[in-house]
Amino acid sequence: MKKDINIKEVAKKAGVSIATVSRVFNNSGTVKESTRKKIEAVIEETGYYPNVLARELAEKKTHLIGLIVHSMIGEGIPRMINGVNEMLEDNDYNLLIACTNGILESEIKHFEIFRSKRVEGILFATREFKEEHRDLIQKIPIPVVVLLQRTDKEGISFVTFDNYTFAKEATEKLIGLGHRNFAFIGGPATSVNSRERQLGFRDGLKENGIELDTNLSRNGDFTIESGYQQMEEILAIEKEITAVIAVNDGMAIGALNCIQDHDIAVPNDISVLGLDDTVLAKASRLKLSGVHYSYSKLGKQGAGLLLKQIESDEALFEEVVLPYEIHLRESVNKR
Amino acid sequence: MKKDINIKEVAKKAGVSIATVSRVFNNSGTVKESTRKKIEAVIEETGYYPNVLARELAEKKTHLIGLIVHSMIGEGIPRMINGVNEMLEDNDYNLLIACTNGILESEIKHFEIFRSKRVEGILFATREFKEEHRDLIQKIPIPVVVLLQRTDKEGISFVTFDNYTFAKEATEKLIGLGHRNFAFIGGPATSVNSRERQLGFRDGLKENGIELDTNLSRNGDFTIESGYQQMEEILAIEKEITAVIAVNDGMAIGALNCIQDHDIAVPNDISVLGLDDTVLAKASRLKLSGVHYSYSKLGKQGAGLLLKQIESDEALFEEVVLPYEIHLRESVNKR
Repeated sequence: MKKDINIKEVAKKAGVSIATVSRVFNNSGTVKESTRKKIEAVIEETGYYPNVLARELAEKKTHLIGLIVHSMIGEGIPRMINGVNEMLEDNDYNLLIACTNGILESEIKHFEIFRSKRVEGILFATREFKEEHRDLIQKIPIPVVVLLQRTDKEGISFVTFDNYTFAKEATEKLIGLGHRNFAFIGGPATSVNSRERQLGFRDGLKENGIELDTNLSRNGDFTIESGYQQMEEILAIEKEITAVIAVNDGMAIGALNCIQDHDIAVPNDISVLGLDDTVLAKASRLKLSGVHYSYSKLGKQGAGLLLKQIESDEALFEEVVLPYEIHLRESVNKR
Repeated sequence: MKKDINIKEVAKKAGVSIATVSRVFNNSGTVKESTRKKIEAVIEETGYYPNVLARELAEKKTHLIGLIVHSMIGEGIPRMINGVNEMLEDNDYNLLIACTNGILESEIKHFEIFRSKRVEGILFATREFKEEHRDLIQKIPIPVVVLLQRTDKEGISFVTFDNYTFAKEATEKLIGLGHRNFAFIGGPATSVNSRERQLGFRDGLKENGIELDTNLSRNGDFTIESGYQQMEEILAIEKEITAVIAVNDGMAIGALNCIQDHDIAVPNDISVLGLDDTVLAKASRLKLSGVHYSYSKLGKQGAGLLLKQIESDEALFEEVVLPYEIHLRESVNKR
């Protein structure tokens, strides 16, 4: 391993004092041109890197933001990260990211690491925002904005999608097309987003006087395979359904493939809708219906809100819920 | 904004000396239990966070690794990050990630940020590994491992996939099935991985005495739409082709959809293969043929190699090229 070199060794190699090396780095005081050249040559040769930390601590501004996410997998969060990066670049801030798998100890540890690295604010996404997260954030003396979830706590800002409402509205759109016999494929019980969408679906039916056999509301694990398997079980219970809603595109595609493998026609016999709008919706031969909401915009807005809080002297609190669009495509038909 | 608090204020609030607060934090020296409790209460109340940096600098070990990537979009890099995280967690290291869009200034800046944050090693992925990257890395006195590309430079370790070889072998497999009339859809010219695959394809044909109309080797931008469009142009030039290879699944799916929209049968008239094996290959109704290589393993091996370099006293240099598997599925047939 290459050895790190300190300022003393640079000074020795260049045959100058430590103070002179320091002056070259800080562009402070006068240094003879020939001396500067000599020091720069040593720096070049040794790869010496000055103690930026000391300078940052003096300035107090690091122009650094920390982002903590629970997962990188899927289309959404990477796009959200791009949105965050874009907003920060426009404002001359830099981003460091940590991925925790939603494990509380890892989240706590990364809050600490980011603080020790002097980030000026933290963007935080987790699988399920809990009391522990509230306590953690309230103890932190730098601004924090929560992404992708409500905090249900005055004082902790968030930017999220309206999962409940768009799931309810998509359900009502299918009811408006004449559908009465529904099945639903949700995600794991640990996913708040999935639970909110499931609730929107149920309330959409309830408010329209439609009863749901609870056996027809099932949970997969977001994969294509699990959508296929849950659909298999739904068809074993009840062949009379005319519409299936899945919380994400992967499971909707799995359901669609399963239905077609049973020689049941999509959309003429059964309509399929994913509460999502990823590249998968375009990959299937039958254009999948879904709901569009922009992760990139969410990242941008979250970062913007955080910067506003960093630059303000007062405590700011904002709840931002982003808009969505429902797209009915080839996979959905009238009943 | 909540204000940061310093050790002086903690000491004042607790009615003790700064040295006493410091002793509580460092678990050094004796502090009366009641005094300790008082200080801990103030810490709890104010959210004071000690200057971890100073301690880290003294210890020299931060147990922190930096990962610089050019993009987060797509299935590969997020999986690679998971692999890196897994290996680091097993070894009690933490990971900070930066995303640069492959812009050199941003890459240089993040190398600097990571060094100033005292990471012990850096994992580096970029769109195209160039002379500038070599110069940059050779000046850095901590270990660096390049991911997803060859460095072509003794002394800079890398872990990558064998793009050229698997593209050549996949091409030869189709030749073995009787195909002679090929088309190819590559990615943007800036993508090294795509260029290597394209070269493997060309050499596969050449070594088997098959000539290629250069108009039938085209470039898209990795999206489904661009695959569709390039296939449209290929079919306008030459309807007699029997096999299409695309460098990624998105463009292969686009090509497949385009062929079917022309009422040409896949795989009976034209076979389709993507040099990739993402979730898209499963989403299409016709299971797409492709090449499997594990981004997660690449991340793990890269991180493992970096840790070995950090923990070793000698300069280590390794070139790691990971294995692959070719999967012929429904989208490919004999000629």
